[in-house]
Amino acid sequence: MSKYFSPKFDKLEPYIPGEQPQNREYIKLNTNESPFDPPREVVPIIRDEARKLRLYSDPESTELTQAIADYYGVEPTQVLVTNGSDEALNYAFMAFSDEDRPIVFPEITYGFYPVICHLNQIPFQTISLREDFTIDVRDYEGVGKNICIANPNAPTGIALSLEEIEQIVRTNPDNIIIVDEAYVDFGARSAVPLLYRYDNLIVTQTFSKSRSLAGGRLGFALGSAELIADLKTLKNSCNPYNVNRMTAKAGVQTLRENTYFKNSCQAIQYNRRYTRRLLEELGFQVLPSSANFLFVRTDRISGKDFYLKMKEKGILIRHFDDPKITDWNRVTIGTKVQMDKFLETVREIFREQDTEQEEN
Amino acid sequence: MSKYFSPKFDKLEPYIPGEQPQNREYIKLNTNESPFDPPREVVPIIRDEARKLRLYSDPESTELTQAIADYYGVEPTQVLVTNGSDEALNYAFMAFSDEDRPIVFPEITYGFYPVICHLNQIPFQTISLREDFTIDVRDYEGVGKNICIANPNAPTGIALSLEEIEQIVRTNPDNIIIVDEAYVDFGARSAVPLLYRYDNLIVTQTFSKSRSLAGGRLGFALGSAELIADLKTLKNSCNPYNVNRMTAKAGVQTLRENTYFKNSCQAIQYNRRYTRRLLEELGFQVLPSSANFLFVRTDRISGKDFYLKMKEKGILIRHFDDPKITDWNRVTIGTKVQMDKFLETVREIFREQDTEQEEN
Repeated sequence: MSKYFSPKFDKLEPYIPGEQPQNREYIKLNTNESPFDPPREVVPIIRDEARKLRLYSDPESTELTQAIADYYGVEPTQVLVTNGSDEALNYAFMAFSDEDRPIVFPEITYGFYPVICHLNQIPFQTISLREDFTIDVRDYEGVGKNICIANPNAPTGIALSLEEIEQIVRTNPDNIIIVDEAYVDFGARSAVPLLYRYDNLIVTQTFSKSRSLAGGRLGFALGSAELIADLKTLKNSCNPYNVNRMTAKAGVQTLRENTYFKNSCQAIQYNRRYTRRLLEELGFQVLPSSANFLFVRTDRISGKDFYLKMKEKGILIRHFDDPKITDWNRVTIGTKVQMDKFLETVREIFREQDTEQEEN
Repeated sequence: MSKYFSPKFDKLEPYIPGEQPQNREYIKLNTNESPFDPPREVVPIIRDEARKLRLYSDPESTELTQAIADYYGVEPTQVLVTNGSDEALNYAFMAFSDEDRPIVFPEITYGFYPVICHLNQIPFQTISLREDFTIDVRDYEGVGKNICIANPNAPTGIALSLEEIEQIVRTNPDNIIIVDEAYVDFGARSAVPLLYRYDNLIVTQTFSKSRSLAGGRLGFALGSAELIADLKTLKNSCNPYNVNRMTAKAGVQTLRENTYFKNSCQAIQYNRRYTRRLLEELGFQVLPSSANFLFVRTDRISGKDFYLKMKEKGILIRHFDDPKITDWNRVTIGTKVQMDKFLETVREIFREQDTEQEEN
């Protein structure tokens, strides 16, 4: 930290993204990317747009905004597109929470939320999960504070029902409820229909997971036209041209390829069930996931050692430093071939353990 | 504004980017884009990268950071790449200025600076230009506050010498000097060499103008490793994956095509001299520009009317609502063909005026 750095950021600890090693080829099951390429129609569209790069992108992202509005059945004024959904989350926290307006979220959830709070000097309160890592909705009823809920939650993968989400939104009418649906397409129900009935709801989604565009950087927020106008005020004060031309076009095309999208989400769900069953057969505890990852632990090896041994053998999974979940690892669901390789490596690690024990 | 919006943003007025009309084909001389396409080698590189979009971009932008470091003769730890230079400016303001650390910039300059200040609750002080729109460096010597200077300045296009910039940096050792060099490649001298001697300097640049990548969204900040580490803390707390894969690759390739870059900057300088001479022959006052635009006025027609008549005739130029420069317009330098069309349209507007006056 330089001597010039504002003391208000003294205690700011940035979010640590999953490893993106540039040196070695790993089977990457650590950052919840899709194992499937974006629909192949995206490539020539991006190539054509690359020829227009001398011109700024449309600061309103008009075409993409309309496409998202059409897809989700809302008005274009209810959509803000962003450079990944992290940007949308940052604006949603900034806009409605401040020193006098704290925000509440689960104790175990996406690690970016407390970082945004520290960055923006927003006081926050966390609520413990139940023993089984589920969210008790009653803890969020009528709390009279802004709330952010990831649904499905990360890194657990456990989803709330639409009725439970509605219960939170309905009982906190004077506060903003942000529902972060980064993983919703893999098996949870979206809160988007609630936008027809509630004006205190912001839903954020991303093209990074189910739509295979992590490297393009695209996300969006949906809400009432009034709330979205507030987010746009922040966007236009921060980064008016936030989405590049190529990604905007890729986003539109991706929304058109709906069969491909549905099929790839179904394949992930199939591979998730398959992996879960086999992990349970190997003695793992596996949380019931509605996302494109599984949160897993076993008595046979510590969370940290499991992560390290996997990495040694060329498979990246995600271990978190948080002591509350130190026994656990988050495993992204890839292709069947990748999951078979992962499961084979689990067996190999267990065999090596057995051999070591025999030798001692 | 919704009832939920934080009152701290009550008075926030977002930056208004130049028009990007989607309906009609204009000759766009209003947002300082390059009239030249990026080097053609960029297109296949982007196409190849489009095939990898399912994977996140490298949050450290390692390859591009190294390429920028090599190009400018600094260490990779002295470089932060950003989603356009607006993102770099926002972090540089946030990191070193706050309620107790005000910032100073010229009264007439890039309109984004006061917006960032309002957004981040940073008190700011503006200093008048001289009558001839030049910056008097003595006003910035030893002011004991953070300072941001666009060099060349916008929308005037007038540059300070490297000695003048050094004078500001040298006499404010306890404060941060941000030099915004968005237009430096068109004829001003960069402050980058001062980084070898001063640790209180941040230089920001963009790929949007001289490198023809406005639609890709790419900028960067250079500074001491310590200052850049501070900016990275903010970046990683705000938007860890800020630059998309395709733009990162395009940036690297653009830096390789240095002859193309130099030629296109020279062509702009040639067209600028040409346009300025002919505008002066038509009776315009034209400020001496080191940028890819001219700031012009004439007694024959008001700034607003000149802008409107030009737009009617299919040419977009930039008029600002600020009463201090309401007589003026900023005209981006395009190709020779575009500038001839612009000049022809000026003559046409003047002829129409003459005819109207004869009729009255």
